[in-house]
Amino acid sequence: METITVKELAEHVGGQVVGDETIEITGAATLSEAGTGEVSFLANSRYEKEVKDSRASAVVIGKDDFTDPDSANDRTFIRCQDPYYAFMQIVVLLHGHREHKKTGISPRAGVAASARIGPEVDIHDFVCISENAEIGENTCIYPNCTIGPGSKIGKDCIIYPNVTVYDGCTIGDRVTIHSGCVIGQDGFGYATHDGVHHKIPQIGGVTIEDDVEMGANCAIDRGTLGDTVIGRGTKMSDLIAIGHNTRIGPNCLLVAQVGIAGSVQVGQYCIFGGQVGVVGHIKIGDNVKIGAQAGVINDVPEGQSIVGSPAQPITQAKRSLMLLKDLPELRKKLREMEKILRSMIKES
Amino acid sequence: METITVKELAEHVGGQVVGDETIEITGAATLSEAGTGEVSFLANSRYEKEVKDSRASAVVIGKDDFTDPDSANDRTFIRCQDPYYAFMQIVVLLHGHREHKKTGISPRAGVAASARIGPEVDIHDFVCISENAEIGENTCIYPNCTIGPGSKIGKDCIIYPNVTVYDGCTIGDRVTIHSGCVIGQDGFGYATHDGVHHKIPQIGGVTIEDDVEMGANCAIDRGTLGDTVIGRGTKMSDLIAIGHNTRIGPNCLLVAQVGIAGSVQVGQYCIFGGQVGVVGHIKIGDNVKIGAQAGVINDVPEGQSIVGSPAQPITQAKRSLMLLKDLPELRKKLREMEKILRSMIKES
Amino acid sequence: METITVKELAEHVGGQVVGDETIEITGAATLSEAGTGEVSFLANSRYEKEVKDSRASAVVIGKDDFTDPDSANDRTFIRCQDPYYAFMQIVVLLHGHREHKKTGISPRAGVAASARIGPEVDIHDFVCISENAEIGENTCIYPNCTIGPGSKIGKDCIIYPNVTVYDGCTIGDRVTIHSGCVIGQDGFGYATHDGVHHKIPQIGGVTIEDDVEMGANCAIDRGTLGDTVIGRGTKMSDLIAIGHNTRIGPNCLLVAQVGIAGSVQVGQYCIFGGQVGVVGHIKIGDNVKIGAQAGVINDVPEGQSIVGSPAQPITQAKRSLMLLKDLPELRKKLREMEKILRSMIKES
Repeated sequence: METITVKELAEHVGGQVVGDETIEITGAATLSEAGTGEVSFLANSRYEKEVKDSRASAVVIGKDDFTDPDSANDRTFIRCQDPYYAFMQIVVLLHGHREHKKTGISPRAGVAASARIGPEVDIHDFVCISENAEIGENTCIYPNCTIGPGSKIGKDCIIYPNVTVYDGCTIGDRVTIHSGCVIGQDGFGYATHDGVHHKIPQIGGVTIEDDVEMGANCAIDRGTLGDTVIGRGTKMSDLIAIGHNTRIGPNCLLVAQVGIAGSVQVGQYCIFGGQVGVVGHIKIGDNVKIGAQAGVINDVPEGQSIVGSPAQPITQAKRSLMLLKDLPELRKKLREMEKILRSMIKES
Repeated sequence: METITVKELAEHVGGQVVGDETIEITGAATLSEAGTGEVSFLANSRYEKEVKDSRASAVVIGKDDFTDPDSANDRTFIRCQDPYYAFMQIVVLLHGHREHKKTGISPRAGVAASARIGPEVDIHDFVCISENAEIGENTCIYPNCTIGPGSKIGKDCIIYPNVTVYDGCTIGDRVTIHSGCVIGQDGFGYATHDGVHHKIPQIGGVTIEDDVEMGANCAIDRGTLGDTVIGRGTKMSDLIAIGHNTRIGPNCLLVAQVGIAGSVQVGQYCIFGGQVGVVGHIKIGDNVKIGAQAGVINDVPEGQSIVGSPAQPITQAKRSLMLLKDLPELRKKLREMEKILRSMIKES
Repeated sequence: METITVKELAEHVGGQVVGDETIEITGAATLSEAGTGEVSFLANSRYEKEVKDSRASAVVIGKDDFTDPDSANDRTFIRCQDPYYAFMQIVVLLHGHREHKKTGISPRAGVAASARIGPEVDIHDFVCISENAEIGENTCIYPNCTIGPGSKIGKDCIIYPNVTVYDGCTIGDRVTIHSGCVIGQDGFGYATHDGVHHKIPQIGGVTIEDDVEMGANCAIDRGTLGDTVIGRGTKMSDLIAIGHNTRIGPNCLLVAQVGIAGSVQVGQYCIFGGQVGVVGHIKIGDNVKIGAQAGVINDVPEGQSIVGSPAQPITQAKRSLMLLKDLPELRKKLREMEKILRSMIKES
């Protein structure tokens, strides 16, 4: 870890210093955990109070944070257009990404003679590379992974321990797959006839495009016919299940425990909250936002935000919720009217 | 892949050709992806339009599809009683199931001296077969699996990479377990006393009966006392959790991310939608259908279809939904009546 | 398995015998599965009927069970303050906990020269212990696990097969981690800028405190800055996802498939039902109980019981449910009043 001044940090991220630009920074931390010599950040103005309580030596803030000069409280800020992005750049500068030691191919790995291994590839202990598999330049495969027959992994990938890639799958460049993921197991396809569930051969594969990152213990079914696809730049968290022949577009974000059934088409830049479920054979447009635990059972047009199970547009859901809140009031009014009505009837 | 005529395909599946029976077929594909020389299928009449747009050379259809002769559009059909089953047979004929190369027992596997290994068994690199384990004839165990002490795996099973079977579990014949599954870990059993959660030894095991298939990364708890059981012919998708001493009957279908707590009894031919949750100690009858994301908290009688969280019979759930839809109308009417009532009071 | 009399069992658990204290017991089983010579237990009075039907030779019951002398039916009981805890003690006495054979360090394991391995440690086949990792006294690491660089595992831990611990994680003493768990993968942190999701280095780690037990296939994200923490004595079931920088307090219970997003603070002795989801950046007090499938989106004060998605206090949820049940009645009444009103208007 190097030492760097607030001024240098601000220049690195294209921000402006408010306060003492000569302060030396050695690390980055959250507002509550930062101490002297550490820089922190404010990504959401509702945490402004935490900035005041923080012992951070400098805080990266946005254009509209702490605009009242009195509120600054003698603090040193780095003011940026996009404070979260700036903070990311600072963390990379100060701490860097995880380094992957060059180890070459372990003699304790099992590499098939027919496998094609690119230059600068690292294959750790107890990794199994099957026949005709291909591993691209500078890719690192950690211990206890299995890469199936004929599967192809691109350049600069990181495959963490205990990952399984089945046969006939294609993984692009700069893909990161965290531990315990399974890519290309047979999808859930049976033809039930006379009370027996007959297995339908799953002869498709999986394509993971460039720059995808996948969290721990995800499960991506291979296609029945044709591939299941995870689009370029899409990022997935942990324990996610993707069904056969589903195609997820580029640059989507999927939070943990999302489950998407088979043959779903998802556009680009969609965001799936945690534990969202999606039924099979539907189409989700670009830029769709799906709230946590939602259950999506119909096509979703481009740009829509949906919540609930079954999922509905967020505006509609709020209206339903409001109506429910009105219920006690409604009942009360009804009783009053009933009373009046009864007394009128008696009088007449 | 061989070439076969539409006529031969129809004979293979017991169907009738409508159109040109001499067309040669080399593969199977979905309606949208099929091209010349490929056969596709229509399993659900609502996709009839897709048949018209498809470039497939032949399409397997049902008894009641395209009965209007004009609608056929010069297409070649194979008409069958059960088109999905027929299509399965065709895919098996054209593409076959995955083949498992006979590799024998790898010298890089760790097989305990006391383990009993049947004839024609394949044990891949870095597999660990513990003391007194038993592996039946013609079973294939892929890399990086661990089979615990005294566990027994039947004949003709396929255990994909990175599977763990704990001690004292029993797996039947023709069982397929996909990567990352864990069979027989301790169930969630603690007796809380004076603020300490004391572990209850989980001395039961797991029995997986014949012809079960289990998707990736499932977790089957061993029984506390007595076994957890997955019934014959039951098929499970990915990331499913089954609690201790739960008994799932024969031929059930469990979609991804289902969670069933402990000591649940499930009948035969039940269908669990994705992300269904079931509380412990309840009984679910035969042929029950549970909608995706449902939360089952009570016994379910035979044959019932339930949805929602908490789950209720589908008819009842629809009625509740309808009532909610009526709410705005109800409120409007109430306000009108109030107005009338007020004016009447004024007048009187 | 030894033979022991009911009298001896009662003394062992501090209970009183009702019936024949000379009966010999050889094992423990559930009420429905127990036979002659086996002891069972009644943890919940609503299963009293099952006691009558059971063939168990003795049953552990609570202070208030079967107090009517006639109800006992000549059965032999061991009456205890806390029957579930007593039963646990009996199961431990009769069957014991799983034993872990002392195997030492397998020559087929890959142990880095710089790793520090304590005395009496067992490291099974195909385990990879990375540089500078530390394994405490009497810890057992089963096959195919990977312990990352610089990670530290305490004393008397059991790490079951196929577990991955990333770099820089700290695991306390007497921790049990079941198969397929992943500890310390990168959390879901990206700064989206100009349409690209830039990875934020996850430089924190994971701390698992003493006496934690974790079910199969869980995934614990490492912290972005600072650690993700699982508190002392907390027990987790299978397939649970914990987000970066979340801190779970001591002695919590998390049922299967719970998902907790990042930066959540959870107090002590909280109970999470199955499939519960918790959004990021909230605070859950001590002794909170969360019903299965609940979706927690706000801070929860100490001691509260919440259910539903979005979650609300259980009393409030029951009120809402009741209101919904009243709806048909409400609508009926409204229609009657409308009729009366109309007839009054006509008359006037």
